[in-house]
Amino acid sequence: MKVDGKPTRSIWLEPDGWSVGIVDQTLLPHRFAVARLTTLEDAAYAIRGMQVRGAPLIGATAAYGVCLALRQGASDEGLEHAVATLRRTRPTAVNLKWALDEMTAAVRNQERAARVDAAYRRAAQICDEDVAINQAIGRHGGLLIEAIAAKKASKKGGARVNLLTHCNAGWLATVDVGTAMAPIYLAHDRGLPVHVWVDETRPRNQGASLTAWELGQHGVPHTVIPDNTGGHLMQHAMVDMAIVGTDRVAANGDVCNKIGTYLKALAAKDNGVPFYVALPSPSIDFSVADGIAEIPIEERDGDEVAAITGRTADGRIETVRVVPERSPVKNYGFDVTPARLVTGLITERGVIAPNRDALASAFPERAASAKAHGG
Amino acid sequence: MKVDGKPTRSIWLEPDGWSVGIVDQTLLPHRFAVARLTTLEDAAYAIRGMQVRGAPLIGATAAYGVCLALRQGASDEGLEHAVATLRRTRPTAVNLKWALDEMTAAVRNQERAARVDAAYRRAAQICDEDVAINQAIGRHGGLLIEAIAAKKASKKGGARVNLLTHCNAGWLATVDVGTAMAPIYLAHDRGLPVHVWVDETRPRNQGASLTAWELGQHGVPHTVIPDNTGGHLMQHAMVDMAIVGTDRVAANGDVCNKIGTYLKALAAKDNGVPFYVALPSPSIDFSVADGIAEIPIEERDGDEVAAITGRTADGRIETVRVVPERSPVKNYGFDVTPARLVTGLITERGVIAPNRDALASAFPERAASAKAHGG
Repeated sequence: MKVDGKPTRSIWLEPDGWSVGIVDQTLLPHRFAVARLTTLEDAAYAIRGMQVRGAPLIGATAAYGVCLALRQGASDEGLEHAVATLRRTRPTAVNLKWALDEMTAAVRNQERAARVDAAYRRAAQICDEDVAINQAIGRHGGLLIEAIAAKKASKKGGARVNLLTHCNAGWLATVDVGTAMAPIYLAHDRGLPVHVWVDETRPRNQGASLTAWELGQHGVPHTVIPDNTGGHLMQHAMVDMAIVGTDRVAANGDVCNKIGTYLKALAAKDNGVPFYVALPSPSIDFSVADGIAEIPIEERDGDEVAAITGRTADGRIETVRVVPERSPVKNYGFDVTPARLVTGLITERGVIAPNRDALASAFPERAASAKAHGG
Repeated sequence: MKVDGKPTRSIWLEPDGWSVGIVDQTLLPHRFAVARLTTLEDAAYAIRGMQVRGAPLIGATAAYGVCLALRQGASDEGLEHAVATLRRTRPTAVNLKWALDEMTAAVRNQERAARVDAAYRRAAQICDEDVAINQAIGRHGGLLIEAIAAKKASKKGGARVNLLTHCNAGWLATVDVGTAMAPIYLAHDRGLPVHVWVDETRPRNQGASLTAWELGQHGVPHTVIPDNTGGHLMQHAMVDMAIVGTDRVAANGDVCNKIGTYLKALAAKDNGVPFYVALPSPSIDFSVADGIAEIPIEERDGDEVAAITGRTADGRIETVRVVPERSPVKNYGFDVTPARLVTGLITERGVIAPNRDALASAFPERAASAKAHGG
């Protein structure tokens, strides 16, 4: 996607051919800055500190983290240490595990001398595959938006298609294009009158900070709303379709995503609004039979809730506390939306029903591999 | 309730016998400060600017606003101007209209010379009645908490009763005691092990700023959570009962309350968690047949969403912007929870089923009066 008109990915290989560039997302929307990763520790810090976030981008960053580690030492021990370090950074997104498994498979049976090259090749592939997957998601999801637009065009009140999204599943959450945002960008680029309700997405405000910024850079009409607002909008027919990303989809179609997604899915169900989840197949975890019971939910520091960072009127970046000093705070990062509330899963292979059979027949090779590993 | 150990109401007559003291709630939790209202305009500003908020307290403040106006001029025109000015301040809470009707009835047929005294008498009554009503709500709701505690005491995992609330329906939302918080304070004072999940309640953070502060002052165990969190907690059996206040209950039992209440009610229903609404009878609007279709929903300034005020590490109060400069924002103040999602309405006359017949038979005089006025 473009930043100030210039095509930009969220992660890239620097011209030196080995170090890795990322957009430092902790500074958006107030400042667009890039950071350079040169060590395993840089990559782990970028993930843990949420300079990069979003399940697909976490996977891509971890892949390059393995490359950086192997440059420092290409032994089996070095590889194992890198994988263990990176796996510990975030517990919920399954793309992290997937990418580390892919990287391990790519280098394990290589001679040490060949490992670094093999790793960089696979990491680059993972990034390019992510972009191709997201473009396919965009095409499949774009058809859903087109159908709504066509239906509305014949009715009074105009053809504007109102979409609602939670958190950021845009190009900043992936290598490029985005997952949930891919169909929206595509529809907008084709001239369809789309408008996006953007949940601010407390506590880290990825909707207000990242999704709104992305959509603004690309010129897509949007409105930021508090997370509390979506139910009211759906109740008053102001949302035609909800579309979100995911950090992990269980074999039964349960969807783990940013905390609060479940509440929007409930509101969608209660008001007959279609609720779609966009996901690349590496986000499916066939080893998890039941999402609600089994997916580990990350707990993060309470300060992410108690204190908020933003820009003062005179342009300084300040952090202010909004919770009384002695009040405890709890900060769960994700929740799980039961499959029964999901209209469909938009994947690179089309729109899949959220159930075990449909997922397994759409991605038989992934389902079989999970079975082989005892999942 | 007590502030730093000293019994305090949220509104009071000053020792001069005519001016009115309030807690300036816009400064909490960072500073406890009082403001003095001496004119109609002061009272209108206090309501509009949310120095006072909460349906019952808005009503009480409006009542004293009429007193202050009549001191300035006790003519019929003066009265009508005061009522019109105050009614315009906030559109959603019905207690405002109720209090203004009460004040009008109290002074209309009085001679001008007697009007000021009559007004102050009725305003003081409205305040004392509010406290008595809330104490009764506390008793009725307290029994529900006691029943849960008794049931849990016999099970493994301890007797702690986990309550969840949204926004502030505590003593700061009323003259004293609170509505939704009244049963919790009572249960806590009786030694029951209660714990309150406090929704931060974006965009104005009344949960984080006011409810957490109140509970902390009174020593009630509580935890502040983002509004997105409640669904996850209910899904994992971490909430025994949800209890909220309301700005207006329609004749059919639909509940208008702070934006986001509807989402919590959906989550409660989906997980079998009882969802109660605490309300004084002046919050019932028998003239509104259908809450979702008819209750006007206030839209407030988008800056309340885009910018957040809090305290810096070195103690300054700063406002920071969290939304990109050019992104539009929408800020609905309330939503309406359909009666079908409400377990019961906790009123001063007991726990009422949320439907037309039950409400009308519990408050026949109010229902009849609405009918007489064509409601």
